[in-house]
Amino acid sequence: MKPKRIAILGSTGSIGLQTIEVLSQSDGLTACALAAGGNWQLLADQAKQINPDFVAITDPHNAQKLQSELPARTELLTGPDAMTELIRRSSPDVVLSGVVGSAGLKPTLAAIEQGADLAIANKETLVMAGEIIIPAARAAGVSVLPVDSEHSAIFQCLLSGRAEEVKLVTITASGGALRDLSDADAAEATVDDALDHPTWSMGKKITIDSATMMNKALEIIEAHWLFDLPAEKIQVVIHPESIIHSTVEFCDGSVIAQLARPDMTLPIAYALFYPDRPARPGDTLDLAEIGNLTFKKLSKRFSRAIDLAYKVIAAGGVSGAVLNGANEAAVEAFLAGQIRFGKIVDLAEDILNTAPKADEITVEALIEADLWARRQVEEAIN
Amino acid sequence: MKPKRIAILGSTGSIGLQTIEVLSQSDGLTACALAAGGNWQLLADQAKQINPDFVAITDPHNAQKLQSELPARTELLTGPDAMTELIRRSSPDVVLSGVVGSAGLKPTLAAIEQGADLAIANKETLVMAGEIIIPAARAAGVSVLPVDSEHSAIFQCLLSGRAEEVKLVTITASGGALRDLSDADAAEATVDDALDHPTWSMGKKITIDSATMMNKALEIIEAHWLFDLPAEKIQVVIHPESIIHSTVEFCDGSVIAQLARPDMTLPIAYALFYPDRPARPGDTLDLAEIGNLTFKKLSKRFSRAIDLAYKVIAAGGVSGAVLNGANEAAVEAFLAGQIRFGKIVDLAEDILNTAPKADEITVEALIEADLWARRQVEEAIN
Repeated sequence: MKPKRIAILGSTGSIGLQTIEVLSQSDGLTACALAAGGNWQLLADQAKQINPDFVAITDPHNAQKLQSELPARTELLTGPDAMTELIRRSSPDVVLSGVVGSAGLKPTLAAIEQGADLAIANKETLVMAGEIIIPAARAAGVSVLPVDSEHSAIFQCLLSGRAEEVKLVTITASGGALRDLSDADAAEATVDDALDHPTWSMGKKITIDSATMMNKALEIIEAHWLFDLPAEKIQVVIHPESIIHSTVEFCDGSVIAQLARPDMTLPIAYALFYPDRPARPGDTLDLAEIGNLTFKKLSKRFSRAIDLAYKVIAAGGVSGAVLNGANEAAVEAFLAGQIRFGKIVDLAEDILNTAPKADEITVEALIEADLWARRQVEEAIN
Repeated sequence: MKPKRIAILGSTGSIGLQTIEVLSQSDGLTACALAAGGNWQLLADQAKQINPDFVAITDPHNAQKLQSELPARTELLTGPDAMTELIRRSSPDVVLSGVVGSAGLKPTLAAIEQGADLAIANKETLVMAGEIIIPAARAAGVSVLPVDSEHSAIFQCLLSGRAEEVKLVTITASGGALRDLSDADAAEATVDDALDHPTWSMGKKITIDSATMMNKALEIIEAHWLFDLPAEKIQVVIHPESIIHSTVEFCDGSVIAQLARPDMTLPIAYALFYPDRPARPGDTLDLAEIGNLTFKKLSKRFSRAIDLAYKVIAAGGVSGAVLNGANEAAVEAFLAGQIRFGKIVDLAEDILNTAPKADEITVEALIEADLWARRQVEEAIN
């Protein structure tokens, strides 16, 4: 494989940490740039370990303390546009975007302008702005490689046929932390309950999204953009063991599935090494030892969240930005103890239903729609 | 798709009938030639329906009666070399070999000489003579496409990576008709018991092979030849539902699986349309409706049969022909009521262990080894 220089956005988060783990085990991949939001101490440790050309920290408060800890060769960038500048200055081959939420939008566009391939773990960016990002990436000739385990699975399954031969993509869902609770009990779940994910260890935002099933709603929209699939060709099935990550059924009735134990380093490595597959240590997946793979239809509660994705695909425009902004703000409010768990999807649904239309889809219009949706959540709380 | 002319060997058997079903639903594929062993009445009906250029019947006894029923344009060939002549005279694009057992060897070699692509449902031919067939096919530039559902699955899964990235191929086994019986009860099973397959409706020989697990032993050897896999990269797992047909694990730990309801028309159509996938009617595979996929390790009884495959791969030479010939003769003896069910694998194992070595692997040496193994079965019975 030709050596690749990677810029990691969100290096101190769950995806960022696992990306650094993958890089530390791999020849030929180096992290040329690291960017984080506010965790300057961990960022300093990472920089000492990796010796990148650049680090960026969005929050300027601790920039000076960070500066004093950096290796001599590492240049520090700070402030709200630090990630974008980091990409322009470091000229990476691949930008791995592991930031959470809509903050990933501008850096993603900067990566495309820069001609860097995209490894996208930040689904919110595609949900918000797939209509801008995907055509821009195509026009610039950059690859968009999914890091989400489900979309990595779909990507790998699609290699077994042609795009026009795809009949149905099925995304699997563990059901999240509250899957076995009644609607009434789930609505009153505590933050700790909702963060207790049965199969995956992930960041807080995505773990709450798993419990509401909004994570799968966002993944349907992500799959729509990544693979140019109409809404009716994407469905979700509950699969509590999280071993089959997604399946693709082709027009002849043959279904291709991708399986692995829940471990984000696999899709991260797949995206970074693509089109190669790196040799990685570890036992083979022993189906006899696993014994059982089970599948269930979506409950009504879960279907309600999933339906929001189909609404967004049908409506287009800024509706993805609205759904995503409303959900992000609602999850923050839940984590802050301001709303009940059951209110998250209620708010997302209500705000999506009253979303204004935008005349033209521009980055500014999307950001405005995102902010509008967040204000609606604030107003609903106060 | 460019139109293809197909020669069907074994047109009156289970695979042949399903191949004709696939062709009747497809544009662009025509059966130019049909060959059968002895069922002249059904062959005559097929010829009237299809109007092929040629039909062949190996058994000459009813050739005259068959001749009187054929369409005017259809030429009849008969006698032991009729299949080979049929392939030479009809110049098909693809030869689908659905004959049972070692009878498929010479026609398969004739197809390669003719430059026809091979769609192989006749695993015995590869088990016997993979060492001759695969290099000959490569040298002639003809494709060898598996029709066995497991090998079709492996073929499709392999498209998701590179040959050198394959870590482990897992072939699934339903366990056959007697899977839930104790060793002692299975050893005394009747023909009717052993033919009562839980998931697949197939010919008698393969159904008995499923019950002994010899079918998977043969499939391991088949996979070894088709995909150039060493023995240690092929394993078998029990999967009673027969939904996952095989899996391929790559060196990064990602496992690709192929799933479908048990239906041989799918791998037949895949082989005939390859590299396209034909649009076929039917419901999508509903995992939620299926609910459960289960997997178990091989029992000791089953492992004993499977180990014969690893012995054959290690020994090479004529050992595949010996194992296959012994097994075919033993299955015939069981179906004729001459031996107990439990004796089939005993005989195959004993005869494989005492097989003579051949100095050179030629078609003649393989046929001789096959006949030698059959004689050993006869001697053991009498």
